[in-house]
Amino acid sequence: MYVYADNAATTKMSPTAIKTMTDAMDAVWGNPSSLHTTGQTAKEALEGARAEIAALLGAEAREIYFTSGGSEADNQAILSAAFTGAKKGKKHIISTAFEHHAVLHTLDKLKKQGFEIELLDVHENGIVTPEQVEKAIRSDTALVTVMYANNEIGTVQPIREIGAVCRAKGVLFHTDAVQAVGHIPVNVKDDNIDMLSISAHKFHGPKGIGVLYAKRGVILTNVIEGGAQERGKRAGTENIPAIVSMAAAMKEAVETMDTAAAKIIPMRDKLICGLSKIPHSKLNGDRERRVPGTVNFCFEGIEGESLLLMLDEEGIEASSGSACTSGSLDPSHVLLALGMPHEVAHGSLRLSICENNTDAEIDHILKVVPAVVTYLRNMSPVWEALEKGEKPHLI
Amino acid sequence: MYVYADNAATTKMSPTAIKTMTDAMDAVWGNPSSLHTTGQTAKEALEGARAEIAALLGAEAREIYFTSGGSEADNQAILSAAFTGAKKGKKHIISTAFEHHAVLHTLDKLKKQGFEIELLDVHENGIVTPEQVEKAIRSDTALVTVMYANNEIGTVQPIREIGAVCRAKGVLFHTDAVQAVGHIPVNVKDDNIDMLSISAHKFHGPKGIGVLYAKRGVILTNVIEGGAQERGKRAGTENIPAIVSMAAAMKEAVETMDTAAAKIIPMRDKLICGLSKIPHSKLNGDRERRVPGTVNFCFEGIEGESLLLMLDEEGIEASSGSACTSGSLDPSHVLLALGMPHEVAHGSLRLSICENNTDAEIDHILKVVPAVVTYLRNMSPVWEALEKGEKPHLI
Repeated sequence: MYVYADNAATTKMSPTAIKTMTDAMDAVWGNPSSLHTTGQTAKEALEGARAEIAALLGAEAREIYFTSGGSEADNQAILSAAFTGAKKGKKHIISTAFEHHAVLHTLDKLKKQGFEIELLDVHENGIVTPEQVEKAIRSDTALVTVMYANNEIGTVQPIREIGAVCRAKGVLFHTDAVQAVGHIPVNVKDDNIDMLSISAHKFHGPKGIGVLYAKRGVILTNVIEGGAQERGKRAGTENIPAIVSMAAAMKEAVETMDTAAAKIIPMRDKLICGLSKIPHSKLNGDRERRVPGTVNFCFEGIEGESLLLMLDEEGIEASSGSACTSGSLDPSHVLLALGMPHEVAHGSLRLSICENNTDAEIDHILKVVPAVVTYLRNMSPVWEALEKGEKPHLI
Repeated sequence: MYVYADNAATTKMSPTAIKTMTDAMDAVWGNPSSLHTTGQTAKEALEGARAEIAALLGAEAREIYFTSGGSEADNQAILSAAFTGAKKGKKHIISTAFEHHAVLHTLDKLKKQGFEIELLDVHENGIVTPEQVEKAIRSDTALVTVMYANNEIGTVQPIREIGAVCRAKGVLFHTDAVQAVGHIPVNVKDDNIDMLSISAHKFHGPKGIGVLYAKRGVILTNVIEGGAQERGKRAGTENIPAIVSMAAAMKEAVETMDTAAAKIIPMRDKLICGLSKIPHSKLNGDRERRVPGTVNFCFEGIEGESLLLMLDEEGIEASSGSACTSGSLDPSHVLLALGMPHEVAHGSLRLSICENNTDAEIDHILKVVPAVVTYLRNMSPVWEALEKGEKPHLI
């Protein structure tokens, strides 16, 4: 049996998204900046997709900027706020310790430029509170950036409440919503969001395309300079086939969200329930406040990478955390942020399912994972020491 | 008759490129950073495309970095050289007055950061000389960036000789080769190039994907921070379907370059010959040293935009210059750089053809354009004044 359970890394494009893209490569291939019919046809498709995506987010079309993906959107949002803040002498930025690297590394860059970066604790449950944000905001705070849903453990943050705090204090608020949009309801107005990042390939859309939502009045700084595309804020010929495909995938994901969740959540809960029975295992992140499809466990005494490779041999495709940092020997910064010790954080497994997974696949996972964990533990000197009581069990 | 003659703005994807992309959306959709089979299959496709593109450029695979397009590649090349230069106290950059805005606007940004930008004259023929570059290089020169072929007028620069000058002087050399690759032979080794930018949609590949070639030893600065993709130099999940499609399109373009040129050049020359017969018209840029497909004319006494709209009604799709700046009321900075007066630069027409155009289409263009020019001139008060001798003819 083959089971793809790594949808947080990337999803397979839906038939609708593939068809929209394929049709557009043939029919809407013009440069939307061209004045002729082929160009103007492309422009209409571009503006249609923009309006559609805006409507799905509760935004206005003019607030939607197409980027090459979530990382670029994160970079642009944060650099824009920093640039605006610096002009007013505001060089304090609040974020959390378990953001995606597209956020954290951009903040590192700003730190080198003299910004003060304050990363809030996310607690053992992987959730930051509005109270923490409120307490951290200062008169020189330029930006609060908190992810909507964590990519490794799936916990959902109280974005609406954090947004309300920021708005009351007059501080710009950005959220990396890459793991949220298309999976849980997101509305930029209701959620008090000033800037928001989206990536299409996380909701069965194409790769290489994303959106930065920026509320009217937010001043954007270019990450990519050049032509006057995207109201002068993002240069480069617009990728219309990917843009219309993204809009189609997003519409589909949002419209089928409830039925998808109704299918996914019971499967996820079955996973949590089953994997919790493995001795010395631990679910990472809050049990309830999470996106439908993502679960992340630590299994004491094993190496995540060995686990993944053995699961792959059994037809189960999963991850130890973020795909973006695989190959790195460091344990996940997300799990460390939850207070997990290094040696336990190494033994993590992320399973991220979608509406295409089946109950039989979940059963297969629940048959294979405990067996592989036992097998690996039997080979592990760390586990032997733990079993002999030479090292204390950590979980 | 329908004639698309705006290939310098964008090309239609070739059937090969569309098929490669469509197949890949279904078969190679994994995240190449994932350790499982689906991920590793994507990684193999990524590295295969990288090796293929490298070979087509005379580069090594490790010197190829995928970006979201030519603009991003230009930004990254220039910012990287500036960052490296600044560390050594080198803050002088040499370029030309008629570069693409992705180059010029990035240089503007650096100017605000204290860099000295020297834009070389491109003369009436639209060609900068190696001697000019040699004369301009100083001990504090961080970078020379000169485009391979101009996007508006199509003139080809003496890149190999400019590269040799830069190498002899130990100065980094970047070229925006967006209008050259796939159209004329480009070899980074033979041409002494340190960094080079490519965009796939200019040679019948997909939009939203490009390449930055950076010679081994060149230190790149990230434009997009985040995950460790592209050897840590360009964050964001790799767009494998677009990448493999780009490689297929580039292979096709390079392999059929000679036969395509043998078909395009006679059509182009027929265009030049025919349009030159229109009174008070002028071919912009050197007659010979140009890419196969691009011609650019000025017609005195008319507005380029009116001309384009009337041509579109006659089924001819063309442009007045760069698509990236259409809608702007300013005349082309390229034509101004050639020394063209504002009022004449307004009356420009770029026709950019490819191997899919036919001789019958060229005949149609040569029938329609003179008639439309005459019609517009008859309605033009400027032309009336010119004809009466109240204003001097400029050409």
